[in-house]
Order: sequence, then structure tokens, then C-alpha cells
Amino acid sequence: MATIVQKFGGTSVGDPQRIMRCAKRVAETKAAGHHLVVVVSAMGDTTDDLIALAEAINTEPDRREMDMLMSTGEQVSVALMAMALQKLGVPAVSLTGGQVGIRTTDAHRKARITSIDPQRLRREFALGRVPVVCGFQGICDNGDITTLGRGGSDTTAVALAAALDVACDGGYCDIFTDVDGVYTADPRIVKNAAKLAAISYEEMLELAALGAGVMHARAVMFGEKYGVPIHVRHSQKPDTGTMITDEQSVREKHGMEDIVVVGAALKPDLGRVSLRRIPNNVGVQGMIFDCISKANIMVDDIVQTEFGDMASISFTVDHGDLADVKIAASQVLDAIGTGELAIEIGLAKVSAVGTGMKSHTGVASRMFRALGDAAVPIHNITTSEIKISCIVPKEHGQRALQTVHDAFNLELGDQVKPELQTDHPTNRIATRA
Amino acid sequence: MATIVQKFGGTSVGDPQRIMRCAKRVAETKAAGHHLVVVVSAMGDTTDDLIALAEAINTEPDRREMDMLMSTGEQVSVALMAMALQKLGVPAVSLTGGQVGIRTTDAHRKARITSIDPQRLRREFALGRVPVVCGFQGICDNGDITTLGRGGSDTTAVALAAALDVACDGGYCDIFTDVDGVYTADPRIVKNAAKLAAISYEEMLELAALGAGVMHARAVMFGEKYGVPIHVRHSQKPDTGTMITDEQSVREKHGMEDIVVVGAALKPDLGRVSLRRIPNNVGVQGMIFDCISKANIMVDDIVQTEFGDMASISFTVDHGDLADVKIAASQVLDAIGTGELAIEIGLAKVSAVGTGMKSHTGVASRMFRALGDAAVPIHNITTSEIKISCIVPKEHGQRALQTVHDAFNLELGDQVKPELQTDHPTNRIATRA
Repeated sequence: MATIVQKFGGTSVGDPQRIMRCAKRVAETKAAGHHLVVVVSAMGDTTDDLIALAEAINTEPDRREMDMLMSTGEQVSVALMAMALQKLGVPAVSLTGGQVGIRTTDAHRKARITSIDPQRLRREFALGRVPVVCGFQGICDNGDITTLGRGGSDTTAVALAAALDVACDGGYCDIFTDVDGVYTADPRIVKNAAKLAAISYEEMLELAALGAGVMHARAVMFGEKYGVPIHVRHSQKPDTGTMITDEQSVREKHGMEDIVVVGAALKPDLGRVSLRRIPNNVGVQGMIFDCISKANIMVDDIVQTEFGDMASISFTVDHGDLADVKIAASQVLDAIGTGELAIEIGLAKVSAVGTGMKSHTGVASRMFRALGDAAVPIHNITTSEIKISCIVPKEHGQRALQTVHDAFNLELGDQVKPELQTDHPTNRIATRA
Repeated sequence: MATIVQKFGGTSVGDPQRIMRCAKRVAETKAAGHHLVVVVSAMGDTTDDLIALAEAINTEPDRREMDMLMSTGEQVSVALMAMALQKLGVPAVSLTGGQVGIRTTDAHRKARITSIDPQRLRREFALGRVPVVCGFQGICDNGDITTLGRGGSDTTAVALAAALDVACDGGYCDIFTDVDGVYTADPRIVKNAAKLAAISYEEMLELAALGAGVMHARAVMFGEKYGVPIHVRHSQKPDTGTMITDEQSVREKHGMEDIVVVGAALKPDLGRVSLRRIPNNVGVQGMIFDCISKANIMVDDIVQTEFGDMASISFTVDHGDLADVKIAASQVLDAIGTGELAIEIGLAKVSAVGTGMKSHTGVASRMFRALGDAAVPIHNITTSEIKISCIVPKEHGQRALQTVHDAFNLELGDQVKPELQTDHPTNRIATRA
């Protein structure tokens, strides 16, 4: 008997029929004799509807009050899910974040979990009942309701799994969603993309950062920290999905051979901002990015190059942020008193990700050669320990993704591929901030 | 400075604009320097929508889970009301039933309040904030959410006022609703009905039982028990409404003279069931009404008459219940083994209510004479200490109501009227169960 946490997202519980279907899955898992905790998000558009109500009254609503409001969405879902389970003859009890003992900081709308007391859950197990827990919420020390912000329900599920130490008896956390699992690339673009049976936390985090929307990075980090295997799967299909787990376990799944590159990703619409001929003084980088972040702009990769005592700093941003970034960057140059601003549009970023890069050479060169053979110009290169990214013209983006996917035989998924040479770390091409 | 509880019903907070209007009223009261607690119901149709959702999943939903579900309606309202107050510059904080310390029994969907800890409210007063509290809900000893059933939000408001002992500093409980206050009769039927400035708890309870839908009896009983003056008034009009309070205070408002009859009421559509020629054995009444109540039929007035060792028992019911009551009453006669069943339809009940009847004679005779002069036939008469009711043909109902209203000069409202004789209790005409 294992302890399993099953989380259902907002689309999966979008109406009574869907809730019933999810309840049937839970009933099947329960029938197999496992200890089970169910976590649910708010139904479909509930969250948007509640935000619209609040904004009709107060365009700058208090964060505490927003949490009071938003937390009702999950409360409706848990009650309905418990009723659905009871209808199927499965004893169940719904619990709010507070009732299940999820304590958080008092940073309303983006609270962090500080502790979970698993006593209530264990008591429900002893009574033979399936606890159905509100995702996304908790309470802070003064008893106020808090919400966890983006990716909150996934985080609740993984955190409950951590508190119950599911891994110790072979358990895990099921994240039921509207995709089959994690693919080697976005299957809407790369037709021969393959579903992965397993992927490491680290790789999943890189892919999430590169725009693979399967899971929010936060829950994955939580899983990594507490060693909770996370099983991402489709809520309306019976198939197994992708297990996100530690590198060691992934390697065991794959046999003795390493998978060097596990996936490829595309960010399709970027712009690049360059601040050229600026004095390379100590602290100038801090000053620049302080200013950019105050304008609420998410900066992607940063590259710095030097010429004597002058430097050039480039960074990529989402295309939609370019207008704002132009203003902020101009202010920076005014403050510095010198330098040139250059903005390039129409860029994309293609990346290859895999923990195997740590111990294999030739990954970067294989990627660059493949892009060169496909006549894709490379504007910029950035790398991390387990990722290589190339900035390419937007119009080549999708073809570049397919090229990288083919170059590493990713269509084989988890299967062993024609191997690269082991031993030396990937050549570092550029510094990544 | 007084402590005032202000309760707004579901229609009053039905959309963001209405919530904002209610918030303005609260802001005005707060500006006058009072300690203030706001209680709100769920917005408009929310409750019905939630019930429909539940029934789409489980036609016999668990009561605990229904409470988990239903309680979200008020939680949405309090958050929005707090935001509205904040928008107007009034510091406010929303609180669930649990957060405000409302403890109840664990009888889900019809829980009774067992205690209220006013500490949290006093702490919010000290911080200068207006607590906005969810009506209709509390928590039971195990931390589960409960709801109070019909009339629950009014009961919450009056109970909070009781816990804060509002009467001791001249405070009261405002019940904002969609009527102006309590009238001497339904103003839709009696054109010269007058709004009462004050009415006693006892009179209000009789009127509520007679179908005056202004307030649910439960909250009035709570007010009577704990001495909380209840001010019923219109949520969208500035006028004062009707103060429901103890007999002594009402009398003080009216000066030295008693008001004998304070209001008249009509139940427009009744049927009468008679079980005739049944043996008047000990326990036969219990057996009969046990059977009727198991069929979930609300019985109105009961009259029993004897002839030797035989008895005849009549009772009135809502016209809509007649089909069910016929089946149940037939079963009763089968069980008794003798007797006759008679059903009359097309009846109405007109009543006069007033605590002054306790100490004045001639009330009954004035009422009967007036109905006689108006050629209204009287089928049945029942009385309580403060009420006289006559069963009349349905087609005479509205005219009978107007006749009684005129007979006691009720169009003068709280003003002193041509007086009746004091001293002897009203003649009892028939026994009322």
C-alpha cells in the first residue's frame, strides 16, 4: 500500500460531469488499496470571475481580502468532489487549507508554505476516508486565509505529498492536467516529439523556464527539495504520463546508458536589447537590472562582452515587453551619461536541455553544426550546466526546434540513442547571468 | 458612542453597485463615531446556484459537504463588502463565522449557535477596523464549517449584537432588507396600512407566524432572549424603519397609553381538514399529528371539540399541502378504525395581533362585530394571549383584512387610538394546540 496524492486542475474539474469523471479515477486508485489524498483547483473560469467581481468594486483590492475571495473557488471544488466520491460509494471529506494544517507566511496572494501538520490527513486515513483538500491556499499565524499565487495548487499537492513522506512507501504525487505528460518538444510544433517516461527535476525546471507550460517551476522545486516523485498525466485518459524525479531514479529507469539531451524547447517571440559602449564600472550591471526590474519586465538571457574598459550588455525579453523596456533602458543610459541603445526584434530562442551535458562533450558542437547545416543563423548563444540556447531569427524558430530535436534523436524519447562522447564538460561559450 | 450591528440581505448585496451603496450606509454610521459590525448574506442567487451545482453531482448530498459548499456564498460577500468599505476609506476586515468565533452544534444545514467569543470583534474595534462577518455560518467543535439554516444571517447578526451586549450602550441591530419596516398590515392589500415605529418581540413573532415575511421568527426569538433591539429598515432608503424590542420599551415609545392591537394579517389560501367522530382516547392527538408531521406537512391552527366520548379535530393547512394531507389523514383514520374525514377548501385566515389584548377586554367582540357588519362569515375562531384569528371564506379574505384593520384604526400606526376597556383578559373561544 502506497500513499498517493492526486491533484486535479481547474479544467479537469470545470463542470459537474468532469468532476464525476475525476472522482472515478480517484475511486479506482482507492480501490487498489492505497492511502489517498485529493487536491483540487477552482473550477474552470471561477478565478477570473471572482477577480472581475472584485475589480468592479475596487480596482486596487486589498491583498488579504482578495485571498478571502479567491479561496472560495477551491472550497466549492472540494465540496463537490467529496460529494462526487460519496456518490461513488467512496467515503470522503473536504478540507480547506486551514483545516488540513497548511501554515503559510502572511504574504497574501503569494504566500509561501511554512509547515504542514499531517495529523488531520492521517486521522482521515484511519477513518477510511479520502481527504479532498483545497489547493492554492493556507492560513497564516493569525488565522487569516492566504493563497499561494501562481502554480499554487500543484505546490499544495507536492507539499502534502512531502509532509506525508510518500516516497518512503513507494508513493508519489499525481498531477492530472490536460496534457499527456512531458514531451521531448512541443508536439504542436514537432510532430515526432515523444512523451518521456521520466525526467529529472533539474531538466523539468529548465524546460519550464524555457516555456514548457506543463508544470509550474515552483512545485517542481518543492518536489526536488523534499524528494517527491511527481507524475504528470492526462486527467481524462488512462495512460501513464511522465514521472519527474531525481536524476538517480531517472537514470535507473533508463538503464546504464545516459540520456544526454532529454528535450528541446522554443521561445518563439523575443526581442533583444543591447546597451553598448557603456563604462564597465563595478555595480553598473546591478544599476541597469534594478531599473529594468522596477519596470516589471521579465528579463530572459543576459550576455555581457568587454572591449577594454568598455562593455556591452545584451538581454532578451518577450516581444510584448519591448515598448516598456525601451523606456526603462533609455533612462538607464541617461543615468550613466553615455552609451548606445540598440533594439532588435523578430528573434526566437531554441534550446536543448539534459543533465547528461554535465558529463558529455560534443553537445554544443552537434547542436551548432545541425543549425548550420539547416542554414539557421545564430545570433547569440547562452548555456547553463544542463542547457544550451541559441537566439535565432524568429522566422527560423520552428525549423530550428525541429532541427535540434532531430540532431539529438529526441523522437526516440527515453530510449537509448546514438551516443555522444563522455567525460568533458560542455564548452562554455558565453557567460549567463 | 454605541455598538451597532448592521446586516445586509442577499438582495441588498446582489451586485457590485448594490454592495457599494450598502458600504456607503456603513460608512455614514461609522462616521457618526459608533462601533460597527457588518453582517452580510450571500449575493442574490448564489445560494440557488450552489445548490444546483451540488444536485448535478449528487441528488442526496452530504450535509457537511453542503455546508462547506454553501458557506462560500457569504465568504464572497464579506470580501467584496470589505473591499467596498476600503474603497470609501473605511478600514475594514472580512471574517468567516469560524474566524469571528461563532461556535455551533454539529447539526449541519440547521446548526444552532452555542457560543460566540467577542474577543476578535473587540480587537478589531481597538484597531479602528469594521469587521465584516459572514452571516449564516459558524464552526462546530471539530472545526468543520456549519450553516444555520433558514433565517440564519439575521440570527448571526442578532447573536453578534447579543455577544457584544449592544443594548447596554444604546446600540441595536440594523436588519437592512427590501421593505421599509413592519406595517400594520400588508400594504399591497391594505392601502392605508401604516409603518410601525416600534413593535414588541412577541407581536413580531405572532405576525411572522401569520405570514408577515419581514423577518424570520428565529432571529426575533434570539433578540427577545438576549434583549437585542432589532431595527428593520430598507437598505436603499434613508428612513428609519421599525424597532422590534421588549414590551416595556415599546410602551415607553407610545407614551402612557397602550396600543391594544398593533397589526392585522392574512393567510390567503388555506384548507381545513376535519377528523370527526373519533374516540377521544388519551394519546389520540399525538398519534394523529405524529403521522401528519412525518408527511412533512406544516399544520396551522388546531381546534378540538368534544361530544360525549367522541371528539372532532380540525386543523388548517396551506392549500398546496391538501393532497398530501388527505393521504396522511386517511391513514390515520384507518389506524383508528373509525371516524370521518372532511376536507374544506377555499379558506383564509384573518388575524389581529397585539400584546395589549392581555389587559384589555372587548377586542374579540369588536373584531367579530366588524366582520359581521361587513357580512363576512366566520367558520372558525382561534386565539392566543396576543392574537385572535378567524377562518373566513377565501373570497372574503382581503376584505376581511381591511375590515379588521379599520375596526382597530390601525391606519394610525403607533399613534394613540380610540381606546378599548382595560382589565379583563380576552375571552378564550377555542383551545389552540
